[in-house]
Amino acid sequence: MENEYYGALEAGGTKMVAAIYDGNGNVVERTVVKTEKPEKTAEELIRFFEKKKLTALGIGSFGPVDIHPDSENYGRILRSPKTEWQGFSFYETFHEALSCPVVIDTDVNAAALGEARYGALKDVKNGLYLTVGTGVGAGIIVNGQLLHGMLHSEAGHILLSKVPGDDFPGCCKYHTNCLEGLAGGPAILARTGLEGAKLTPDHPVWDIVASYLAQALADYCMVLSPERMVLGGGVMKQEHLFPRIREKFAAELGGYLTTPALSNLETYIVPSSVGGDQGILGAYCLAREPV
Amino acid sequence: MENEYYGALEAGGTKMVAAIYDGNGNVVERTVVKTEKPEKTAEELIRFFEKKKLTALGIGSFGPVDIHPDSENYGRILRSPKTEWQGFSFYETFHEALSCPVVIDTDVNAAALGEARYGALKDVKNGLYLTVGTGVGAGIIVNGQLLHGMLHSEAGHILLSKVPGDDFPGCCKYHTNCLEGLAGGPAILARTGLEGAKLTPDHPVWDIVASYLAQALADYCMVLSPERMVLGGGVMKQEHLFPRIREKFAAELGGYLTTPALSNLETYIVPSSVGGDQGILGAYCLAREPV
Repeated sequence: MENEYYGALEAGGTKMVAAIYDGNGNVVERTVVKTEKPEKTAEELIRFFEKKKLTALGIGSFGPVDIHPDSENYGRILRSPKTEWQGFSFYETFHEALSCPVVIDTDVNAAALGEARYGALKDVKNGLYLTVGTGVGAGIIVNGQLLHGMLHSEAGHILLSKVPGDDFPGCCKYHTNCLEGLAGGPAILARTGLEGAKLTPDHPVWDIVASYLAQALADYCMVLSPERMVLGGGVMKQEHLFPRIREKFAAELGGYLTTPALSNLETYIVPSSVGGDQGILGAYCLAREPV
Repeated sequence: MENEYYGALEAGGTKMVAAIYDGNGNVVERTVVKTEKPEKTAEELIRFFEKKKLTALGIGSFGPVDIHPDSENYGRILRSPKTEWQGFSFYETFHEALSCPVVIDTDVNAAALGEARYGALKDVKNGLYLTVGTGVGAGIIVNGQLLHGMLHSEAGHILLSKVPGDDFPGCCKYHTNCLEGLAGGPAILARTGLEGAKLTPDHPVWDIVASYLAQALADYCMVLSPERMVLGGGVMKQEHLFPRIREKFAAELGGYLTTPALSNLETYIVPSSVGGDQGILGAYCLAREPV
């Protein structure tokens, strides 16, 4: 095990985090590469991964990316606003260059897997990881495994009931009342003229953001019955949101569900863990685990 | 296999359907018993199941019922409006009387399993079965297995955005805007003064019911990414609802998701199958499959 090596790649739209792990889950080497043109970035990453003979490579990628192992486009970036990357195949590029199995999933699924194996979802079999940033997305663990389904979860686009008095039309191109369009980073910017990081905790927008997140979490709870829900991403760096979300979440449930897990919302709705490494750890897990 | 026998019980609030299957899935005997006091009903059922030496018994039960195999209340009816049944343990009663393994799940989970193994979800690994009747509930299949989670899905209580102009306050004790409270059988009765079965297809209530069901299905689709969704239960005997639901569902998605499965909504949102036997077939599957 100790002389086996696994590659892990957290492929983001602005940067790529790459690491080589040994078979015991220890990091051997790690690097961060800026996301530029695909040829240039891929070449840098290949040079990094070639330092060891890899048993497998796991990739958590920005999307939209085809993650169906039996698809001919497996590992390929689909119609993307990042036009230079559109059509780029992570699978073909790294499989050819490194001659090892390559496993690809979405960035948020990888992050959920990292939380499930090493982080805040380590002790549960059913959980949810929600990232709230420029995009809003969820990775869902059911019976210890990632939920994929027809495509992958698009839980960030769940449709919500508008908060009374909120006449913001949402900033999702497709929906007037989805979570991402009402409460994601761009919505906060459009609502206030400022990025969330520049707003004080007493700004009224946070109460609206907390309301929509609470409503979405109540729905995820009803549908999925998770044992715990983890909130990460840039917006959730606003720690003051957590108590507000928990309070509003309880109000949304209305006392309907009573379980031991729900009796303490401080351990039911929690911040992300592992110091922001859930994505790269999850990519490592993708390389380690059978698909 | 052929001289093995499995018991199946679909335990409902008004009637109990019981069957004995052989190891090939053929019905050997079947009976229907009225749900009266638990002692009387249980005795009748035990007399029926004793006709064969059972390898195992599977039960899909009305709720609330404890379905956690490691709980000391496994198979027990919890705080129930049917007070005579409150505290009754299906597990203890049948395990003692029949001396065989007894596996219990909710009625809607059993029905989802029946559809998954024998019915409309047979060819997919991820699907949803929604029953719309006096109650509204979902059984969810992920990676070929039932989703249980912390408790079990309560997707019938998903919170919805009110249809403009609909001032009906819902008839759920806990929520003003959940699917069950807005569109279940009692809501239809409260909205119109008549049971759904007595209303003509041109009654305006159906448009409202279809809107809420479509909105809930859009949310289930975003969160779970199922490959197909099956609608059963008394309300869904109104066949005219299906085209309306499909049309409104497409409008809710707003063109955001494009997959081969979604390209034909007539095979994506479908009526229940197996002639209403999904519940008893699912109970048989509970007896057959490892928990």
